[in-house]
Amino acid sequence: MKWGWLLLGVLLTCAYLCWSEKGLEFPEYDGKDRVHQLTIKNYKSVMKRYDVMVIYYHKAVGEDRMSRKQFEVEELALELAAQVLDDLEDEDIGFGLVDSKKDRAVAQKLGLLEVDSIYIFADDEIIEYDGELAADTLLEFLYDVIEEPVEIISNDRELKGFHHIEEDIKLMGYFKSAKSSHFIEYDDAAEEFHPFIKFFATFEPKIAKKLNLKMNEVDFYEPFMNKPVSIPGKPYMEDNIVSFIEEHDRPTLRKLKPHSMYEIWEDDINGQHIVAFAEESDPDGYEFLEILKEVAQENTENPDLSIIWIDPDDFPLMVPYWEKTFGIDLSSPQIGVVDVEDADSVWMEMDDEENMPTADELDTWIEDVMSGRINPVDEDLECQVIL
Amino acid sequence: MKWGWLLLGVLLTCAYLCWSEKGLEFPEYDGKDRVHQLTIKNYKSVMKRYDVMVIYYHKAVGEDRMSRKQFEVEELALELAAQVLDDLEDEDIGFGLVDSKKDRAVAQKLGLLEVDSIYIFADDEIIEYDGELAADTLLEFLYDVIEEPVEIISNDRELKGFHHIEEDIKLMGYFKSAKSSHFIEYDDAAEEFHPFIKFFATFEPKIAKKLNLKMNEVDFYEPFMNKPVSIPGKPYMEDNIVSFIEEHDRPTLRKLKPHSMYEIWEDDINGQHIVAFAEESDPDGYEFLEILKEVAQENTENPDLSIIWIDPDDFPLMVPYWEKTFGIDLSSPQIGVVDVEDADSVWMEMDDEENMPTADELDTWIEDVMSGRINPVDEDLECQVIL
Repeated sequence: MKWGWLLLGVLLTCAYLCWSEKGLEFPEYDGKDRVHQLTIKNYKSVMKRYDVMVIYYHKAVGEDRMSRKQFEVEELALELAAQVLDDLEDEDIGFGLVDSKKDRAVAQKLGLLEVDSIYIFADDEIIEYDGELAADTLLEFLYDVIEEPVEIISNDRELKGFHHIEEDIKLMGYFKSAKSSHFIEYDDAAEEFHPFIKFFATFEPKIAKKLNLKMNEVDFYEPFMNKPVSIPGKPYMEDNIVSFIEEHDRPTLRKLKPHSMYEIWEDDINGQHIVAFAEESDPDGYEFLEILKEVAQENTENPDLSIIWIDPDDFPLMVPYWEKTFGIDLSSPQIGVVDVEDADSVWMEMDDEENMPTADELDTWIEDVMSGRINPVDEDLECQVIL
Repeated sequence: MKWGWLLLGVLLTCAYLCWSEKGLEFPEYDGKDRVHQLTIKNYKSVMKRYDVMVIYYHKAVGEDRMSRKQFEVEELALELAAQVLDDLEDEDIGFGLVDSKKDRAVAQKLGLLEVDSIYIFADDEIIEYDGELAADTLLEFLYDVIEEPVEIISNDRELKGFHHIEEDIKLMGYFKSAKSSHFIEYDDAAEEFHPFIKFFATFEPKIAKKLNLKMNEVDFYEPFMNKPVSIPGKPYMEDNIVSFIEEHDRPTLRKLKPHSMYEIWEDDINGQHIVAFAEESDPDGYEFLEILKEVAQENTENPDLSIIWIDPDDFPLMVPYWEKTFGIDLSSPQIGVVDVEDADSVWMEMDDEENMPTADELDTWIEDVMSGRINPVDEDLECQVIL
């Protein structure tokens, strides 16, 4: 009898725990090893088993406790991602590790170049993921990878949804149908940039009319710009579209995203970045962002201007580090110039949290940065002289 | 000389690694233990050392490998959060663990009730965090905790930013100044709900006029509703505001957020949830969400209707689990009823991905759910009969 009661107790406890979150059981790592250690002997046979292969090309792991612990955390992130994807129905997605020292031969065979990057082998494409090594960010990216590279817009509400996307580079084309040879060229071009650049198309004359698109024409939209640019020389071959994008893929204003943060940071201009911090979900930040967009729209023709907008909400782990490194308070908006070599920086003075600069003031400040009148290196010298 | 070259090599390697990401060094766990194991002997002295104390009240850790591994992952998340907050200037935020079996006495003293929850002790308030146990989600929440509970709106652009916030319950009050006794009552009420519910105030007659607010009046905004409700009986005491919110804190349409996901899931209606999946950044999802908002706005007076909107982009780790549990494809929008006891569910049939239901069709479907004509339990029976 005692056992009976105990068992009931256990069952009730379990029932409570299970029921209370049924439908919302957050995955926890189950301890099973799913990530493969790729070697020159096994890499071909392992990779054959999957539709998509995700390979982390990592630097050799140091002997000290900290290095081992850090690598363990990275491995756990990949294991968790692999475990979650085990439940996916349509695609088999595999994970592998390549050590840049021990497995150099594998890296060479596969064409892995940048250490500490993740390479995704999908169909005939190799996609480099140069973002945060966290299971959720990586998974979100992988879901985009396995989607179709071109999304079709067929009614007004979807068109509204298309216009709602303003943070990414996007293209919109108008074609007769999915069978049109011009659409197929467009689709091939999309594969080259998928999933970093968003490709849309419509086959509806009504939608095309609203977008002012002629048949077989493609419009290119910079992030945060209301007006697109039509790619010249329609109808296009794949190469025309690809080279146009390659010439225009550094926008005047771009948002730092966790899945491509390192890639964007490496794309500096003369060793510097203009960086703006603004929290969109905060009225102060929203206000500053509106001013910033206005200034970006006015300067969109300037090829040397590329402002990186960082929403601190997207990078909770980085906030205290940025505050300390740059000597700023991120509870209100900030704009500054950062030297990427030593992280020296100089920030626009904003007298009063309640009074953001006007678009003109911001524009003047940006001009001063562009002309070199405001420069983080000078600030250093100034400090030295003063000291 | 050899040592000299070696040292130079090390310095160069470090320089390369450091320079390449200067300004963007993502924190990795440094291996240092910062999270305290709280016991009946040490908890008072530990808690005295911090402005804010974050306590994870966890169930006893099992002996098997999986349980230990899972707990280790949870501990690592807290350690990383604690490490990141070490750099924070203004606040000392401490982390502690309380084992629900071994440290039951501490839990009782501190009033910890729900196992597997995180309790945040800040000033005189205890805030329960019933969300995802991940460093970034927890940190984002903690930054909100240490902010002022009422945000002041002082110009048109900030007002635009205020209107831009539509996913949260928000309140807006108009007062003479921050010294007004009515504002102080409002501020006290805000502390009770901070940071889950957003409190705003303005001291500007021009802004108040645009919002149709009279002096000392407070408007209550449901998520996704354009029109607010004025709280009756101004000027209010703290209690009036608190009880009004408590009566209205279950909105017609609410978004599942990682920081409060379990709390929302526990707030079911007759053991069921109406759940809508829609990816806002996808034109299909955006379209469906527009229809959903329209239907919610029409039904806002119905106290028994509370739809949970889940954007799959916010929960990359859950997507394959939901697809499997509910038997649905999350690459296009879905709406269904979920039984929280066993996760049985029934989903609205949408003939064609390209043709979303109209607002009327969706409204009829929701009526059928509310009246019990559509019911996940029936579906079960049906299946059994068929089998």
